[in-house]
Amino acid sequence: MSTVKPAADLEADPRVKAVFDDIRATRKSDFINNMWLYLAFDPTLLESTWRDVKAIMATPSELDPLVKEMLYIAVSATNGCSYCVHSHTAAAKAKGMSETQHAELLSIISLAARTNQLATALQVPVDAAFYADRS
Amino acid sequence: MSTVKPAADLEADPRVKAVFDDIRATRKSDFINNMWLYLAFDPTLLESTWRDVKAIMATPSELDPLVKEMLYIAVSATNGCSYCVHSHTAAAKAKGMSETQHAELLSIISLAARTNQLATALQVPVDAAFYADRS
Amino acid sequence: MSTVKPAADLEADPRVKAVFDDIRATRKSDFINNMWLYLAFDPTLLESTWRDVKAIMATPSELDPLVKEMLYIAVSATNGCSYCVHSHTAAAKAKGMSETQHAELLSIISLAARTNQLATALQVPVDAAFYADRS
Amino acid sequence: MSTVKPAADLEADPRVKAVFDDIRATRKSDFINNMWLYLAFDPTLLESTWRDVKAIMATPSELDPLVKEMLYIAVSATNGCSYCVHSHTAAAKAKGMSETQHAELLSIISLAARTNQLATALQVPVDAAFYADRS
Amino acid sequence: MSTVKPAADLEADPRVKAVFDDIRATRKSDFINNMWLYLAFDPTLLESTWRDVKAIMATPSELDPLVKEMLYIAVSATNGCSYCVHSHTAAAKAKGMSETQHAELLSIISLAARTNQLATALQVPVDAAFYADRS
Amino acid sequence: MSTVKPAADLEADPRVKAVFDDIRATRKSDFINNMWLYLAFDPTLLESTWRDVKAIMATPSELDPLVKEMLYIAVSATNGCSYCVHSHTAAAKAKGMSETQHAELLSIISLAARTNQLATALQVPVDAAFYADRS
Repeated sequence: MSTVKPAADLEADPRVKAVFDDIRATRKSDFINNMWLYLAFDPTLLESTWRDVKAIMATPSELDPLVKEMLYIAVSATNGCSYCVHSHTAAAKAKGMSETQHAELLSIISLAARTNQLATALQVPVDAAFYADRS
Repeated sequence: MSTVKPAADLEADPRVKAVFDDIRATRKSDFINNMWLYLAFDPTLLESTWRDVKAIMATPSELDPLVKEMLYIAVSATNGCSYCVHSHTAAAKAKGMSETQHAELLSIISLAARTNQLATALQVPVDAAFYADRS
Repeated sequence: MSTVKPAADLEADPRVKAVFDDIRATRKSDFINNMWLYLAFDPTLLESTWRDVKAIMATPSELDPLVKEMLYIAVSATNGCSYCVHSHTAAAKAKGMSETQHAELLSIISLAARTNQLATALQVPVDAAFYADRS
Repeated sequence: MSTVKPAADLEADPRVKAVFDDIRATRKSDFINNMWLYLAFDPTLLESTWRDVKAIMATPSELDPLVKEMLYIAVSATNGCSYCVHSHTAAAKAKGMSETQHAELLSIISLAARTNQLATALQVPVDAAFYADRS
Repeated sequence: MSTVKPAADLEADPRVKAVFDDIRATRKSDFINNMWLYLAFDPTLLESTWRDVKAIMATPSELDPLVKEMLYIAVSATNGCSYCVHSHTAAAKAKGMSETQHAELLSIISLAARTNQLATALQVPVDAAFYADRS
Repeated sequence: MSTVKPAADLEADPRVKAVFDDIRATRKSDFINNMWLYLAFDPTLLESTWRDVKAIMATPSELDPLVKEMLYIAVSATNGCSYCVHSHTAAAKAKGMSETQHAELLSIISLAARTNQLATALQVPVDAAFYADRS
């Protein structure tokens, strides 16, 4: 179903094995989801993608881990990325997203899509008050 | 700069005035931003849009008001809506978004855009484990 | 295949049942399509979505019902929403869209996608004559 | 403001002049909007684009000319093409689109954007009943 | 799985047969992929689409045939077109795209998606130096 | 015009200065375009963005530098990123893109947008022959 074919024994490549080991250690789980299995066709791409996903999504920071997943869902749904909507909704639920929070997330992102459409179709001029760099 | 022209005295229409009064009361501010001035060319559209923006964005709920604005920014940037990116970034700052939080928001939504692109270009099959409705 | 799981007996919830009954009455059909079955995980979201779909799509207005469905298809295809393309193409056919009209719809929306791409890649400046609010 | 620069005397090129003459004759107007002035940097691109715009948008067919413009607006707004939203809204008004029709168009396309977002975020499975090619 | 149903004997229509014959001759292959089988429900749409695909993608020109396929993949992935990502990745491989080139393509298009998101979320003003038509 | 405001003396921050110095050295030019001036509000975001742009776009690799810029333009135009379309078209011209190549790029990316729209509106099923990981 993909445009690449994962090798039979992906972890025979030490660079792939190192990334997969780090994914397992970081997530405290043996499960490696398909995104990483398919990215592994190119170890450099796998490494740079995981490096940044780990740094941004799996490292404590100002934003709450659940909020980060919700932001990821918001972008992924807007881009129509089926895989990412699925993986990050599952991640958000694993981090405690309730049904009520899920529904509220959907309300907000569908409202945003609607008013984005209105603002664009009307070509509403930006209020000068919104410019952060106005002199 | 727009596809419609706001009337000279928008609030002469009592339906428009009622919405504008509610915007001012809800936000405790006299400032009515362009989105509402331009939507007012059709009072029905103005009323239904404000009704839902108020219900979802200006009513206390499970999600923090700042998180809601960040989600709105995430969708608006992904959709390329210049007006909405400006208005909701200003709103997020008014609700306390720090520069660090702003930068973190940008890191997450640009990471999501990048991995969305990868997942779509690879056509990664969705892991069965992610289906909430699998039997 | 979804990110939520519809309850076994959705209509045990009176709010869900009321919406489903109204869908059946409005459409004069017993068929409830998946969109509503899946939205029902949150009765508030179900109610507000159906309220607006009914008001805009199932209420007589200036635009012809078939034209409305075609506009819905145009947006849904552009957004890459597989579900919505399917459901609204089926609805358009049920409202009488011929194969010739379907083909013409496809010609127009694919031409628009093409010239959108050209105008954006060229960054063509908007002609002042097009501004409705020019002074 | 663009990525190309129109030549000072575009119509010195007979291929450009032929297209511009046909635009003027087809539209019964001397006004050539910027899209064509900027596309003229490459006569082949200008010719093939105009050939198809004329065949699809300026030739009588099953769909009403105003409906065609509305479909064009629907795609252009969804794609965020500022130029195209402006030019086709102006064209729709020139073909008689009333303020009420404009508002109804906006209601439909913003509703579609909203339910597209919901269907994608929920990953609603397509009902088998919608497949035109089911056996 | 589609919104149209290909006829049982598509090539009974001489216009369809002529296009299919030309596809086979141009590609030196008997394989007609689904895109053409489904477009054939309307011979005019089939003819105009194939005419332009052939002229642009299957005719020698300045750009290398493999580069053309990569550009097609870049747009198709960004638009989230699953069918097109699949068909043009297969075409690029048939034209010699190596795994290394495929990975590099993915690196570039995912980087572009990421910085597009940043530029839009920041609403970075365009440098005057970039305008080709500045006076 | 932006959602952030560059500091008056950006290079007073040694991390920002280090990135700017590297941009100047890599490009052999004193010009720092707005993207970097605005990203500098957060040195971490500036550093990680420049690190990857440099590694992917400014380091010799399998793909030709001009091809890389064209791929960047293809994604940026499809995403509707005005800033990125401008900056990468200027970069492509600096790397030798002729008017003919520019026009050919536009022909391909607008054809792709058109057939993406058709494939999505038709929901054409992917040919099994295109799956790289079919068994």
